[in-house]
Amino acid sequence: MSDRILSLKERIGQMIVVRASGYLFDQQIRYPVWEPVNATLKYWLETLHLGGVILLGGSAAEIALRSQQLQSWSRDNPLLIAADIEEGVGQRFSGATWFPPPMALGKIAEKSLTKATEYAKEMGAITAKEALAIGINWILAPIVDVNNNPDNPVINIRSFAETPEIVASLAQAFILGANSYPVLTTAKHFPGHGDTSNDSHLDLPIINHDHDRLEAIELPPFQAAIKSGVDSIMSAHLLIPAWDAEFPATLSSKILGEKLRQNLGFQGLIVTDALIMGGVTKIASAAAIAVRAVEAGADILLMPPDPIEAIEAVYSAVQGGTISEARINDSWQRIQRAKEKLGQRHPSLESLSSLAAPQALEIVRDILKDSQTVSGNLPIQATQGRNLIIIDDLLNCDFLDRSCPAVTIPRQWGYQTQIIDRSTFNQSLVSPETTLLQVFIRGNPFRGSAGLGEETKAIYQALLKTGQIQALIIYGSPYVFQWFRQQSGEIPYLFSYGQQASAQKIALETIFEWPTSGKNQTDTFI
Amino acid sequence: MSDRILSLKERIGQMIVVRASGYLFDQQIRYPVWEPVNATLKYWLETLHLGGVILLGGSAAEIALRSQQLQSWSRDNPLLIAADIEEGVGQRFSGATWFPPPMALGKIAEKSLTKATEYAKEMGAITAKEALAIGINWILAPIVDVNNNPDNPVINIRSFAETPEIVASLAQAFILGANSYPVLTTAKHFPGHGDTSNDSHLDLPIINHDHDRLEAIELPPFQAAIKSGVDSIMSAHLLIPAWDAEFPATLSSKILGEKLRQNLGFQGLIVTDALIMGGVTKIASAAAIAVRAVEAGADILLMPPDPIEAIEAVYSAVQGGTISEARINDSWQRIQRAKEKLGQRHPSLESLSSLAAPQALEIVRDILKDSQTVSGNLPIQATQGRNLIIIDDLLNCDFLDRSCPAVTIPRQWGYQTQIIDRSTFNQSLVSPETTLLQVFIRGNPFRGSAGLGEETKAIYQALLKTGQIQALIIYGSPYVFQWFRQQSGEIPYLFSYGQQASAQKIALETIFEWPTSGKNQTDTFI
Repeated sequence: MSDRILSLKERIGQMIVVRASGYLFDQQIRYPVWEPVNATLKYWLETLHLGGVILLGGSAAEIALRSQQLQSWSRDNPLLIAADIEEGVGQRFSGATWFPPPMALGKIAEKSLTKATEYAKEMGAITAKEALAIGINWILAPIVDVNNNPDNPVINIRSFAETPEIVASLAQAFILGANSYPVLTTAKHFPGHGDTSNDSHLDLPIINHDHDRLEAIELPPFQAAIKSGVDSIMSAHLLIPAWDAEFPATLSSKILGEKLRQNLGFQGLIVTDALIMGGVTKIASAAAIAVRAVEAGADILLMPPDPIEAIEAVYSAVQGGTISEARINDSWQRIQRAKEKLGQRHPSLESLSSLAAPQALEIVRDILKDSQTVSGNLPIQATQGRNLIIIDDLLNCDFLDRSCPAVTIPRQWGYQTQIIDRSTFNQSLVSPETTLLQVFIRGNPFRGSAGLGEETKAIYQALLKTGQIQALIIYGSPYVFQWFRQQSGEIPYLFSYGQQASAQKIALETIFEWPTSGKNQTDTFI
Repeated sequence: MSDRILSLKERIGQMIVVRASGYLFDQQIRYPVWEPVNATLKYWLETLHLGGVILLGGSAAEIALRSQQLQSWSRDNPLLIAADIEEGVGQRFSGATWFPPPMALGKIAEKSLTKATEYAKEMGAITAKEALAIGINWILAPIVDVNNNPDNPVINIRSFAETPEIVASLAQAFILGANSYPVLTTAKHFPGHGDTSNDSHLDLPIINHDHDRLEAIELPPFQAAIKSGVDSIMSAHLLIPAWDAEFPATLSSKILGEKLRQNLGFQGLIVTDALIMGGVTKIASAAAIAVRAVEAGADILLMPPDPIEAIEAVYSAVQGGTISEARINDSWQRIQRAKEKLGQRHPSLESLSSLAAPQALEIVRDILKDSQTVSGNLPIQATQGRNLIIIDDLLNCDFLDRSCPAVTIPRQWGYQTQIIDRSTFNQSLVSPETTLLQVFIRGNPFRGSAGLGEETKAIYQALLKTGQIQALIIYGSPYVFQWFRQQSGEIPYLFSYGQQASAQKIALETIFEWPTSGKNQTDTFI
């Protein structure tokens, strides 16, 4: 780290974390509106003394190279490199370990809190180890929101549980595990995003609870996270009239300054949720939002639409006396302290080989097995038929390809794959065939809904009438699963929190009877 | 390279090139039957003194790391690292430059051979440069087969053209371009795979042409490639009774020894096509095939099912006198010479940044534009409607995702995306809506067919009757395009040889009228 005195603008630059594609090449950029080309990114890093970068997209191997590249562009200014890896590094960056959604641990906690906290601690430790191995030093997890609204379209199974006690315990264990490595953790989204039925990526949700309810349900997991030494806390884009009728949490000095910094005594980094989200962009100009977030108490502005505009706006506010220079220095010192914790780490081919270790994958399997729900006469006998897979969006499913178990295992038993999404729903799919039905639906940002569409419900009810469904597997949402369970009658079913390959394999191994004789070999080789 | 004397078994080991996944981690292996886990691969490389590895899967960034890893496992024995990059490095390894299929150049050659050969030379040079940048030193291209059978399911548009003259000229230019870098090239598949209507990945095709026809059509491009200094020639799994009624080319000393080595005077590496392909595996045991290929004259055995079995089988044949030690030494010396050409190259982050350079992408665009066919009243006015995309297989299309132009451009104009493949074909898709129809179908290995299925034809004819098709875009096969052209009447259409994002963008920019006003912004950011 450079020892020279930073200028005011450079100290403000340290408060900015920009978004970048995790891919190395411009032509791989998937969201050109949000992700700068390399020439721009390099220029920013060379000249603005930015605090860091949040990466989206790319595989683990690519991130290992990308993080080196970014650190080299940033020269003597070590970057925070952040990622939304709530389900482990493999959730975002293929090749690394991908855990089931946090709520799978909450399910296990209902039977054994001890077991669930052990898993959470392992999940934190493995996530931290793998993040550092590819150059990510800031984990934007755990989520400590209490998901007490089944219709929550954006938090949903990203939350550990529906009660503050379980969320607090599992979040603490995750942070404890992660803290065995020199990496930053983040409790989010302050003061609690669990009871919303709309998505702050799109609009500003309003939380109409009173002070007592917020203290009783929403705050305890944050208090627990602070007690466990969480390094940063991310603000939510939520309007909470009981605490601040004017500003959403991200822009509220009453919430960030008084509640979080003073009352809860949090001394770590306060980071905003992404400043390009509909929850704040609809309120004011990007420049005004940047200034207001710093006034409110944020140390880091995450993904402002334009970092230069944000820096200039905050700089002008200091020059104009709206923000004091002491306020900037406070944030800058917190950022310095956080960076000192990290030391200097560069991924190597050797450290990369520690990813997706057999022990880590074994823990993933254990969590998946322990959180799975089954019912009916299982295992079933495989008979040739149809493997009907229903997903939300063909163009947005990183858990499905031609080599994934949901496709290959039924194919080995002679099932023909048929995949439909909301663009291809069709009643005539009710053909009189033996059908294995696999449904992959869960709440996710931007989806706009936590649950099933009417078309899926109609298809299922039509298939039910024909009596052709041999077995049903739901991957993802326990709320979606509830609906199917109410309909299903005698059909054997299985619910898994996971959607990834390991979840598919465990589910199908549970569903089918495995004969000792050889299977059909249908592998091709190009 | 080690200077010590290799044992006989190690010299035989040099003749083996094994397949490996291009991904770094075992859990990313997509074809476990064909791709060893890292522990096995490392053991092979440490102990068997293998000639090299052929990589499939992974991105360009991953290959850069993977090739370093493999070379380090192989210690003092520098590996040949091969890949089937017939359409540039980006065809197989995302991030690098992806050219259109070779036949796009043949189309351009019909108008200007000079222009087409210039493009081919650039394509060879860019492919070589990018291959070396990620550690690939052996390009398994160009294909010099003359595609004189429109039903050819496996070569098809992978060939430069339908006449030997154009194929010869373009292949020579490609080799010339590639040879400006220290990398190996490969002419394939000897003595010519262009006139088959079945796929040697699945079965052994029979070529019933007489000697004169083979001399006139199939051989000239190979002669041209040899003249241009091609480093290796790959054998075809084809039975050619006019030359050898007993053995397919890969196993035929009459074809590899007499025709190729003696008559054509080829002094470079003879490499077999993959020995795991149905075209040879159905003939004899893997051990017998390995021995027979060496007897026939092959220097390199590509992808034997088990390298240890292959080495032991050839070793026993030498011990037993079936193969002379001189025969092994001949191959070994050729392999040594080939490796000396390469020198030692290790990818660096710096060399990586040369991938997908603006000039390379510009050449791709030029080739796409110059080979595109359009007809009818273009451009059309965008009107809200349906963007119906027909593909072969949802689970096997690396050109389609939520950020690709075939999806995003029509969406910006208000079109709703609907994607169907052969598992979801349905007549009720004929809903009375304005429809932009995009069809992605081409011949490819394992597809089993070069053309359109009956369902696609039926859908198209039904849509035609309703008069709802606003415009038609065919990506991939000119043979598929022929069928549509015969049906289409007055509908504006466009044919592109490419299927990748750049091809989609150019096609859609040609099809639609671009207003000066802003488009709908539908980008999301996670």
